[in-house]
Amino acid sequence: MTVTLEDIREAEQLIAPHIVKTPLVHLHPLDQILGTQVYVKLENMQNTHAFKIRGAMNKILRLTNEEKENGIVASSSGNHGQAVAFAAKKLGIHATIVIPETATQFKINAIRQHGAEVVFSTVEDRFKVTRELSDKFNYTIIPPFDDPHITAGQGTIGLEILDEHFDAVIVPVSGGGLIGGISTALKESGFSGKIIGAEPESLPRYSESLKNGRRTKVPTAPTIADALVVNEPGKINFPVVQKYVDECVTVSDSAMQHAQKLLLTEGKILSEVSSCIGIAAVLEGTLKFKPDEKICFIISGGNLSLNQLNFLEN
Amino acid sequence: MTVTLEDIREAEQLIAPHIVKTPLVHLHPLDQILGTQVYVKLENMQNTHAFKIRGAMNKILRLTNEEKENGIVASSSGNHGQAVAFAAKKLGIHATIVIPETATQFKINAIRQHGAEVVFSTVEDRFKVTRELSDKFNYTIIPPFDDPHITAGQGTIGLEILDEHFDAVIVPVSGGGLIGGISTALKESGFSGKIIGAEPESLPRYSESLKNGRRTKVPTAPTIADALVVNEPGKINFPVVQKYVDECVTVSDSAMQHAQKLLLTEGKILSEVSSCIGIAAVLEGTLKFKPDEKICFIISGGNLSLNQLNFLEN
Repeated sequence: MTVTLEDIREAEQLIAPHIVKTPLVHLHPLDQILGTQVYVKLENMQNTHAFKIRGAMNKILRLTNEEKENGIVASSSGNHGQAVAFAAKKLGIHATIVIPETATQFKINAIRQHGAEVVFSTVEDRFKVTRELSDKFNYTIIPPFDDPHITAGQGTIGLEILDEHFDAVIVPVSGGGLIGGISTALKESGFSGKIIGAEPESLPRYSESLKNGRRTKVPTAPTIADALVVNEPGKINFPVVQKYVDECVTVSDSAMQHAQKLLLTEGKILSEVSSCIGIAAVLEGTLKFKPDEKICFIISGGNLSLNQLNFLEN
Repeated sequence: MTVTLEDIREAEQLIAPHIVKTPLVHLHPLDQILGTQVYVKLENMQNTHAFKIRGAMNKILRLTNEEKENGIVASSSGNHGQAVAFAAKKLGIHATIVIPETATQFKINAIRQHGAEVVFSTVEDRFKVTRELSDKFNYTIIPPFDDPHITAGQGTIGLEILDEHFDAVIVPVSGGGLIGGISTALKESGFSGKIIGAEPESLPRYSESLKNGRRTKVPTAPTIADALVVNEPGKINFPVVQKYVDECVTVSDSAMQHAQKLLLTEGKILSEVSSCIGIAAVLEGTLKFKPDEKICFIISGGNLSLNQLNFLEN
């Protein structure tokens, strides 16, 4: 079940026709503000505007013909739901996405525009409803993380930033699929820089788990980082993070919002507030780098309504 | 007085320590929408968030020591004003910027933050006031365009996009310094694609002049493209455009606003409405490209207050 560099290289080949090699740019306007050389990997410019399509596509392409004919199901109101819907449409597979009733119209529309069937449930029941649909219609469940093919797909980002020889790569953390994949790709390729995870301070599931030396569930808690709300590390991902990730830091909501504004007004890039968590960690002083160090921030997604830019009134 | 490829190469060497080699990215999310391969040269991520620093820096660095000690003056409420103020601060030169009383507080603040002295005048009198200041204090006037060193500086953008072998490069046009410089750099380097200018339909100074075979002044008229308001081609720039530019098209305000929204919501890039004029020309159907063609859009600047995003209410 352990994902290796070889798995990630295979995923890269397999998903290449369906994903974008996203831009990796030196964002000079932020250098002085953050006190280091700021590079951004722009997964907000990825198909479906988030990295999730990499893992979902790698998983779905590996289904048997019978599984493809039966259809797939996923539970997500967010970027994973859009990714599964997009991949299914592209490959001619029937997809059902289970969405919590609390999801915004913006996200529901985004999933529907890819032609997926939408089923509503309560937040609590969404995984139960997903399993019931899977049992009833023989749908294959496409999990958002903690699946080797999903992790291998997300890891392809690591291969795309290898050549730049960064001193550190900062990755937003929720279930751990993204950082698990990226850290495997980089460390097994001989990358000598640091890999640092950043998670909301109200949901320190990796920080706590790393401290305790075992997967630790933290209480569900609110955060504006709506893409980073998982409250327990993934089973497959945790040992990978233990092995390859150098550090995991927590970040406040207010710093993330400040970072989102900075990225837009100074960096000229629109991203989800969750994706700004690495920049926020530097703004907050939790992470400090030297002026001559090259730091890569993974900007994981850009799915947001402009109404969500709370700072516009300021 | 004619600017040559050699002048532009010299400018590139001279200004290198002071400017950013801005990102040139394939903006995949726009490919399907525009029906072609969309590349953007992101001068909104340039120092002072606009290309103007290239020309201003090339001009100011070439002043004599006496001229530098006497100080400089420029008339501009926009990107040229910011560029001159930034360059002057960086080089330790006193700068005065003449600003029309109608300028927004956002722009006035942007110029003041670079430490320049600000003098207000009526819109009509601003060039007169600039000359008077020049006469009185021995300030050297740094013109916004129609100066060989300014044109050569702007032309350095052309050198930075040469390697991609584009089928066409689309350039926003006002006085003609940007397109004059870029077209010289490209065509004298053997570039075989098209160079196309785009100007507001209410101010078709280059379209009219090219049709008439001579510099033609058009009536002053309103446009939302506040960086493209010159109403007569530059003396030096017009023959260059005649020689090297393949086509000049006009674009409506509504298409520019639509393009600005598209670039932000789909492309995840924030730019001035003036800089979206090339994308707008494609949206409007004035320019059409094939799906396999590689088209470069010069995103010339990103100086705007978020309050200027008129579409946010939609």
